[in-house]
Amino acid sequence: MSEALRTDLYQLTMMQAYWRSGHNPHATFDYFVRKIPIGSYLVTAGLSYVLDYIENLNFEDDDIEYLKGQDFDNEFLEFLMNFRFTGDIMAMPEGCIAFPLEPIIRVTAPIMEAQLIETFILNKMNFSTLIATKAARVVYAAKGRAIAEFGLRRAQGDGHLEATRATYIGGCASTSNVLAGKRFGIPVSGTMAHSFVTSFDHEIDSFRAYADTFPSRCFLLIDTYNSIEGAKKAVIVGKELEMRGEKLLGVRLDSGDLSELSKQVRKILDDAGLTYVKIVASGDLNEWKIDELMRKGARIDMFGVGTELITGRPTPALDGIYKLSEVVEHGRRIPKMKLSEETVKATLPGRKNVWRIFDKGKSVKDIISLDDEGISNAMPLLGLAVKKGRIICDRPSLAQIRQTAAENLLNLPDEYKKQDGAPAYPVELSPGLIALRERMVERIRREEISGIRQH
Amino acid sequence: MSEALRTDLYQLTMMQAYWRSGHNPHATFDYFVRKIPIGSYLVTAGLSYVLDYIENLNFEDDDIEYLKGQDFDNEFLEFLMNFRFTGDIMAMPEGCIAFPLEPIIRVTAPIMEAQLIETFILNKMNFSTLIATKAARVVYAAKGRAIAEFGLRRAQGDGHLEATRATYIGGCASTSNVLAGKRFGIPVSGTMAHSFVTSFDHEIDSFRAYADTFPSRCFLLIDTYNSIEGAKKAVIVGKELEMRGEKLLGVRLDSGDLSELSKQVRKILDDAGLTYVKIVASGDLNEWKIDELMRKGARIDMFGVGTELITGRPTPALDGIYKLSEVVEHGRRIPKMKLSEETVKATLPGRKNVWRIFDKGKSVKDIISLDDEGISNAMPLLGLAVKKGRIICDRPSLAQIRQTAAENLLNLPDEYKKQDGAPAYPVELSPGLIALRERMVERIRREEISGIRQH
Repeated sequence: MSEALRTDLYQLTMMQAYWRSGHNPHATFDYFVRKIPIGSYLVTAGLSYVLDYIENLNFEDDDIEYLKGQDFDNEFLEFLMNFRFTGDIMAMPEGCIAFPLEPIIRVTAPIMEAQLIETFILNKMNFSTLIATKAARVVYAAKGRAIAEFGLRRAQGDGHLEATRATYIGGCASTSNVLAGKRFGIPVSGTMAHSFVTSFDHEIDSFRAYADTFPSRCFLLIDTYNSIEGAKKAVIVGKELEMRGEKLLGVRLDSGDLSELSKQVRKILDDAGLTYVKIVASGDLNEWKIDELMRKGARIDMFGVGTELITGRPTPALDGIYKLSEVVEHGRRIPKMKLSEETVKATLPGRKNVWRIFDKGKSVKDIISLDDEGISNAMPLLGLAVKKGRIICDRPSLAQIRQTAAENLLNLPDEYKKQDGAPAYPVELSPGLIALRERMVERIRREEISGIRQH
Repeated sequence: MSEALRTDLYQLTMMQAYWRSGHNPHATFDYFVRKIPIGSYLVTAGLSYVLDYIENLNFEDDDIEYLKGQDFDNEFLEFLMNFRFTGDIMAMPEGCIAFPLEPIIRVTAPIMEAQLIETFILNKMNFSTLIATKAARVVYAAKGRAIAEFGLRRAQGDGHLEATRATYIGGCASTSNVLAGKRFGIPVSGTMAHSFVTSFDHEIDSFRAYADTFPSRCFLLIDTYNSIEGAKKAVIVGKELEMRGEKLLGVRLDSGDLSELSKQVRKILDDAGLTYVKIVASGDLNEWKIDELMRKGARIDMFGVGTELITGRPTPALDGIYKLSEVVEHGRRIPKMKLSEETVKATLPGRKNVWRIFDKGKSVKDIISLDDEGISNAMPLLGLAVKKGRIICDRPSLAQIRQTAAENLLNLPDEYKKQDGAPAYPVELSPGLIALRERMVERIRREEISGIRQH
């Protein structure tokens, strides 16, 4: 299916207005985030989708047919039939760490093209980045214990696949989502449901039926009736497995005081010699609850996390934006910026890059610069991904992206990874960018005072 | 693409355990919601997706191939190759009003089939119902003013299409999402972006370019620099359109004090004789902000709502669940229920229906009954949708579903539609269901006391 119509109507009406008025300058737009909803950093994700979209962007016959019925100009629609994206895109790779105001994607193209793709970029980047970031927070809270994602049942419908992919980028170890496993090669994991247990007359019958079927990878859900009694029955089945030369992999707790229960269950398992049996915990978990469980010394080896991970609850949307920073007119590059009474709503003018400075392997400061400024002893974060409409960057595998994210997160000092109250990571503007911004602010103010700026 | 793998891994491992143990009784599961996150009612949506899924449910060769690599039994996989859903499904139609504990979907099938489809039902029903309900709340707050949905850029990725469909079921008038417009026939709407305005040297040039292109459907965004100055320029362009025999449709405010600005802009338009020009307002709106604007007497004719509508923010997931209520063993129907220390977590036993009682056209009370009980002077809400795996219910158009929802919402007394502090709608249990529940509670307690219930 063509994705060209996966855009806001106004992008298409503006396109026709640009096209009709002959006003279609080259323009540069930045995709960035003003404010991170929770925490101090973002883990970027979604670029793969943007690149696939750009590669395949065209209007199919039935798209044109549909637009005909929406009152678009016939000549314009003929133009759309041969439409291809012809611009350049600079981007941070997936798995990069980004901070407020930093361009994550920078698009330079005839303005009508740059506008058309805005909605898709926002839709995909906002969501994948939101979820990869959430996953990184949850993984960080678990201090090395594996996080199994199992949110499919609460995912926002068809958004489940990219959400699962993003949780893996953010560091989750596995997913319950079989389709995502098949599509992306993410390890799949699962235990059993309460209904499996209750469908048998006796809890232990359900455990035995499961253990008989999966003797070498058996997890038992022990909280259906009473977690302690369930643990004792798990011991019986674990011993039966031992007699067959197999080992019970684990038990799952899904309710109650997980910290206290995990300690009691650990003791029951250990006392029976089943020290190798892992304890998995689940039940409306998030980074705060996991953090608390860890602080209480819970004996949990793996966490299953669903709703919060897959929807980003309580902040299900990243308010990333796409703002004009330059227009080229008659060969002249004219920086654009928005002034606002609310300083936070102002934008940064000109074509920009982002540089990261490291100290002893740790990232300590970023600098946003103008494109033609070099920053010494720093690593540029935006790389050319699309040139004249053609994808020219590497396309790392999902495993590589996940590895990149893990390394970048490791390099981020711990203070910025605190669940709450993390300080803002230092992001400075380069001398060139500061000077440009000051010149522009001054000119805008002067024009306002002298009444030149009538708009 | 086959959707059979759009399920949790444990559904498939449990299936294999059921299949291998020969324990595969007919079972009945209820999809219902224990607690509505915001407000007192739900607008059901998503059944169309469930029916399409059931109709096409099968494991393709590459699904089987994938599962082979996941350590499933070869014989079981052979069985899956010929798998079809063979059970019955009762359901409330889309656009129905539902309340806590009421079965919205009821599945009766061999337990392995009923489990396999659980995850898809939860994924689709939870999300579509969440968003249709949110939309109904936003529409209600606007007291007849149209709601234009434009959340695509903040939607949870590929979830955007079904989310848009659900906002339309809930009563939104249009969407900015062109693909959703094409796919579902939803009216599309849009104005212009700030970048369109700033890409021109003067604001009025951008207005004229747009008006020239769309003289008969021109909306102008007037807040890029200053909303009052913008309104004055809109008047100039409106007058120019009048001279061409056209009429400016509207202006949009996207920032600032929307109530105050809308009154000032209304006056500017009216003073110029442009009384027919509509005012659209947008900017992080939700049902509470719209309610407040209405109470302040804002002169707004249409609201554009994005993020909150399309993600359900602040509650992006409906915690709908799917619980076992009956198992048939040796031809005997054995009701199942869960007791819980937390009463709210208990379930209702047996095959059930839901009945609605009307008084003077208003819905006043619901009764949850056992399947074989008739409730007089009441309307049953669950109807047979799938019989022995075949879809047998009507498949209303989206327009019809939207109409159904509107009528049902109209019939719901206003007190239950209050944004905050709405009372719980009365949902009673039938005599038969109460008696069954009491017998079961008593038996479970007795077994617990006498120690028979060992599980």
